[in-house]
Amino acid sequence: MRYRSKRAKLIEKMLEGFRLRRARAGERIASIRVLSAELGVTPVTTIRMLDEMVTTGVLHKEPNRGYYLARSFQAEPRIGCCGAATVLDGKPSQELTNEALKALLEHFRASGCEPVLLDYNELTSGMAEEKLAKLDGLLLKDGCLDAKTIPILQKFAGRIVLFNSNTICTHLLCSQVMTDFRGTIAEFISRCDIRQYERVLVISPANSNGLAISQIFEDQFSAAGLDNVDYLTLDTSKETAELVAYKYFTEHKQIDWTRRLVIVLSGNYVTGIVSALPLNGGCPDVLCFDNQEKHHLFNGLSKPYFTAVDRNMPLVFTHALDLLLELVRDSSRENRCMFVPASLVIRKSVRHWR
Amino acid sequence: MRYRSKRAKLIEKMLEGFRLRRARAGERIASIRVLSAELGVTPVTTIRMLDEMVTTGVLHKEPNRGYYLARSFQAEPRIGCCGAATVLDGKPSQELTNEALKALLEHFRASGCEPVLLDYNELTSGMAEEKLAKLDGLLLKDGCLDAKTIPILQKFAGRIVLFNSNTICTHLLCSQVMTDFRGTIAEFISRCDIRQYERVLVISPANSNGLAISQIFEDQFSAAGLDNVDYLTLDTSKETAELVAYKYFTEHKQIDWTRRLVIVLSGNYVTGIVSALPLNGGCPDVLCFDNQEKHHLFNGLSKPYFTAVDRNMPLVFTHALDLLLELVRDSSRENRCMFVPASLVIRKSVRHWR
Repeated sequence: MRYRSKRAKLIEKMLEGFRLRRARAGERIASIRVLSAELGVTPVTTIRMLDEMVTTGVLHKEPNRGYYLARSFQAEPRIGCCGAATVLDGKPSQELTNEALKALLEHFRASGCEPVLLDYNELTSGMAEEKLAKLDGLLLKDGCLDAKTIPILQKFAGRIVLFNSNTICTHLLCSQVMTDFRGTIAEFISRCDIRQYERVLVISPANSNGLAISQIFEDQFSAAGLDNVDYLTLDTSKETAELVAYKYFTEHKQIDWTRRLVIVLSGNYVTGIVSALPLNGGCPDVLCFDNQEKHHLFNGLSKPYFTAVDRNMPLVFTHALDLLLELVRDSSRENRCMFVPASLVIRKSVRHWR
Repeated sequence: MRYRSKRAKLIEKMLEGFRLRRARAGERIASIRVLSAELGVTPVTTIRMLDEMVTTGVLHKEPNRGYYLARSFQAEPRIGCCGAATVLDGKPSQELTNEALKALLEHFRASGCEPVLLDYNELTSGMAEEKLAKLDGLLLKDGCLDAKTIPILQKFAGRIVLFNSNTICTHLLCSQVMTDFRGTIAEFISRCDIRQYERVLVISPANSNGLAISQIFEDQFSAAGLDNVDYLTLDTSKETAELVAYKYFTEHKQIDWTRRLVIVLSGNYVTGIVSALPLNGGCPDVLCFDNQEKHHLFNGLSKPYFTAVDRNMPLVFTHALDLLLELVRDSSRENRCMFVPASLVIRKSVRHWR
């Protein structure tokens, strides 16, 4: 048994070599003498090993000429996935992201590809470059890109697909998958009779994704000639979006919100709004980003339904893997940015439909 | 001859109908009676016409059953091209764009597709919507997108590919083709020993493309820990880039430019710099955008060679048509953003190579 196990290890080592250099069928294997010296075993062991590989169909033997590869090897692409560790911390506010990350991990399995999961802290540790060097491609969630990780990521030689960011990444040569809000926002503006509202308030978090979506509203509202729109950026870096929104709407209780439309570019603001204002009769019409209703965020509320922009996050995440596999398998493919269209979920919370 | 010509017209009318509704092989043609009434001709004329179409292989006749389509029809996509009219005004500063537009028009011909050329003024005229309604797709050069054209373009039902813009268009649901400067800028930063310069000056025009490229420099320089870089935006909306640069470098003649690197995000600045400063001994090292050297802009200069970022503009323009044709032919394809990599043209003007 001891010899069998040793031979199995040698065979595994040879197979790994074939995979790594994507060895092609017909390739001649080094001579018994050379191979024995390389592997540090006797010629008898080498011959037994090669003969076993003939039996399993990896090699074929040509009498008096040597051993040849009977099939080609394709290395499975080694794909790192950074930003998926958050799936483990089950915060309710992260439910949408968690669901999308689960879909991504499921998609890895379906693609026959085992992800190398890296969390943010690993990416900034001293071991990061060594870990990255073993990868052909890296799937990068937007939050993992910052001043600490950028210099490390810039040295990565493989392909990168950045996902869930809504601006073009200027730091790295990479491909991207982002949600396309443009058509959904155009649909909302054309179907909702916005002039019926006294004023419209667009609230965005102070991050680049929030500001990018806010810009689409601003550009499309202005092209539509609408001038009853205000834009508000709320800093959510120190407090949760829920608390920040609760404070804002408590401070502005004197406004008759029922004659207004509020557009919140993060679903997490919504619970803050409905906590601050009387839900029956005191709330504005709301267009809520992130279709969180199905994720139990509104449990216990008497009117849980808000017209929402569903960003189809699981599709963004799984498309990112498809794109990365395509780029890793064909290195001649140029980087690109895929848009996954968001969709409008119309519910009774918005009154003025045309 | 008169009858022959009339029949030819009738046949052309029927063929156009087949193309428009993408008629499929095997489809049954309306009866002689119905067809004669529709076309306003006698049954004899109709039969002669149909028999001629049998002869040319368009129809086949099944005795006692009628006429059937022998082949399927695919309508040629009707593609509008807005922004190509400038090819006619032969300003030297527009030579790069003109060359790219010529490549685009050639690519239209090679694709078997006749462009409907629209200039900016037509797009803002009262006839614009009617013209656009006849198109399946629109190729839009970045300069054609502004406050006047956006409301008209938003109503266009076909696919749009915006090209030559370096930011994501927020006004319209569209695809885009843009130059990818990220890798070229990373290559320049890694190969040029930038710390050898006393200071580096990045000059960008005050438009969105210039600012987008400037942002890549700023983000990548800062990630590389370089702090000897200044950023300058020069307004070129009232004067040419050449004159603006000439004025700036004349006003700042007291600086020893020979110890500095100047990065100009528009090739048109360069002639202004070399006019203001003594070319032999007084000029900074220059990284010039737009590889204009081959376009005779530097004729008459003793040192015409500047290290340049070649934005491969003809590729951007022709890729835009390829992408639009793909989207028009398969309406299920989602919008995306294609990046065409720029390339670094290294010449002797930049000294400090590692």
